[in-house]
Amino acid sequence: MFTLLGTDPHSLARRGRLVTPHGVIETPIFMPVGTQGSVKTVHPVELEAIGAQIILGNTYHLAVRPGMEVMREAGGLHAFANWNKPILTDSGGFQVFSLGKLRKIKEEGVHFQNHVDGSPMMLGPESAMEIQSILGSDIAMLFDECPPHPCDAAYAAKSLDLTLRWAKRCREWVDKNQPMTNGKPQLHFGIVQGSSYPELRAKSARELVGIGFDGYAVGGVSVGEPEPEMMAAVEHSIPHLPMDKPRYAMGLGTPPQMIEMVARGIDMFDCVLPTRLARHSTAFTDEGTLNLKNNTFARDFRPISEDTHPLCRGFTRAYIRHLIKAGEILGLRLISLHNLHFYLSLMSRARTAIEEGYFNEFRKEFTAKYQPHKES
Amino acid sequence: MFTLLGTDPHSLARRGRLVTPHGVIETPIFMPVGTQGSVKTVHPVELEAIGAQIILGNTYHLAVRPGMEVMREAGGLHAFANWNKPILTDSGGFQVFSLGKLRKIKEEGVHFQNHVDGSPMMLGPESAMEIQSILGSDIAMLFDECPPHPCDAAYAAKSLDLTLRWAKRCREWVDKNQPMTNGKPQLHFGIVQGSSYPELRAKSARELVGIGFDGYAVGGVSVGEPEPEMMAAVEHSIPHLPMDKPRYAMGLGTPPQMIEMVARGIDMFDCVLPTRLARHSTAFTDEGTLNLKNNTFARDFRPISEDTHPLCRGFTRAYIRHLIKAGEILGLRLISLHNLHFYLSLMSRARTAIEEGYFNEFRKEFTAKYQPHKES
Repeated sequence: MFTLLGTDPHSLARRGRLVTPHGVIETPIFMPVGTQGSVKTVHPVELEAIGAQIILGNTYHLAVRPGMEVMREAGGLHAFANWNKPILTDSGGFQVFSLGKLRKIKEEGVHFQNHVDGSPMMLGPESAMEIQSILGSDIAMLFDECPPHPCDAAYAAKSLDLTLRWAKRCREWVDKNQPMTNGKPQLHFGIVQGSSYPELRAKSARELVGIGFDGYAVGGVSVGEPEPEMMAAVEHSIPHLPMDKPRYAMGLGTPPQMIEMVARGIDMFDCVLPTRLARHSTAFTDEGTLNLKNNTFARDFRPISEDTHPLCRGFTRAYIRHLIKAGEILGLRLISLHNLHFYLSLMSRARTAIEEGYFNEFRKEFTAKYQPHKES
Repeated sequence: MFTLLGTDPHSLARRGRLVTPHGVIETPIFMPVGTQGSVKTVHPVELEAIGAQIILGNTYHLAVRPGMEVMREAGGLHAFANWNKPILTDSGGFQVFSLGKLRKIKEEGVHFQNHVDGSPMMLGPESAMEIQSILGSDIAMLFDECPPHPCDAAYAAKSLDLTLRWAKRCREWVDKNQPMTNGKPQLHFGIVQGSSYPELRAKSARELVGIGFDGYAVGGVSVGEPEPEMMAAVEHSIPHLPMDKPRYAMGLGTPPQMIEMVARGIDMFDCVLPTRLARHSTAFTDEGTLNLKNNTFARDFRPISEDTHPLCRGFTRAYIRHLIKAGEILGLRLISLHNLHFYLSLMSRARTAIEEGYFNEFRKEFTAKYQPHKES
């Protein structure tokens, strides 16, 4: 159940609330990514401390390892990962299409060799939904084809038709099996595809809405396309999606991209940048990114930023740089935690700005101040 | 100031309390090792949560990286590492002697090339004490020569004489410079050497006590000697040390070794085993070690042990195994935290056993139950 609590008068930004089987999430929201059942380097207690409301897990990765027998015996992903708040699971579509030559797309689904031991597997609409029902996620994503960028019009149209046929099969599987988690019905989100073709995006959105889902994602963004195309893909999808359902831009983005996406009507985000850039010693701030490995920080005894999380306070840039140079994992932990806190609190600031009517000013100020570096 | 609170009637075990400039520590105690200014994988908040009262830092490692200019500007190791409880620093003696061919022992000190960039450095009694005064540790260790195992009698005697001359120079430097930390006098511990020769151990202890220090360590143990020799080295040192000063066995040991050392009159321990074995997926329990990478744990949905720390509760062996196989750092974190908790709580159990008069039973039960595996 999604409730629209307010809208911004100067943009399409919305303030909403989504009730899921494991709890309520406030939107716009950032969802930390826990592909393999763990948000990289972070303990669930820390996720709660930094205000994470929902995390991601991945169908493909978890089905490959530890495998569905373990996941079933464990009682699902919440119990396995010791996380009792909402979880969204990606369907594995994006991951299997990333396997390149190792996969073959057929009408029934995708045949592939997994990246861990190379054994042959198949993922299709029904199996992707079944796996997600066993994982017991609060929000399950439909199994779709995510076309590459660039993609010619003929392939994009053909691919979209397949994705729509798969969407119907997902719906049928869900209607028949009525998957539950925490004693309540699992939610299911459709994924708008159509590459960079406005008419295909429109068709995709309209047909998915016709079938009817609990929310809608914009997929096929963040696949290497230039930022204007990414924005356009969202702009061409949003007008065809209902106001009373949440909208999720998959795999996005940099901090200013997220703010711009909120302004275009997106409610939910997931992105590996906070934890991935942490592995490259890069921390997010309102002014842009800092590479803490740099020599300039060797005697910088300030915290990463003034508004870092209490768990990162008291640690100076000089100390974190030392930890990185010395190969100490605490350095990676502190930057990961700081970055996730930055992303989560950026969305919290956006929510407040929408509630209090100054989102337009916040958007302008933030995007003007933030200087993108190479790292982001 | 060390206070002897009680002794065990059946062994040399003691219950004590040491007041240091940054706080009080209860003995017998285990001290987690933070060689490079970080207890591997662990956050200071977690160290407090598992009851760490004092941690170690290392003169050699910190002088090499980040270097003493950074340490001085940071205001010492407590501020740098964001840890406001007691710290003991090793003098670097053990580390420089481990450099093998890269070092040359002279009367003034040891010349060596450091392991990070190979640049030439010198560490001697005065510089080791000066560095430790800048680090601002609560307990500074004397600069000694740690002879290898095995070591012939002539070399052991010659090495001990050098160590004793260095001890006098350390004492003179301290008397002259009066190093303070947290506004109070830093404590200084002598190190008993003498390899496996009882008369040298006795001489070493007697002469150090003659010079006078705040505590005494038994060094040159845990250098690859068989366990009976390790025990003998302690047995030959303890009778010559005063009852009213703390005694520290350097670099020890396995859980039963620590209990046996407590029974021989040792008050303080440090050891890298809890964090090092964690990196090999190995967890300590009362029954011995478990290698959580093993297949047998793939569907084992019990916690590492029933008495694991609350921060590790809720995580099953199957989940931790999955994290290890998937290369997720949380797995390493959970085992490290569990192992440190195990070591800390083992000493807490020993303290209670001494206080309540059942240390002898505790010692027998624990050492009988604990089955050493290859990993430990």
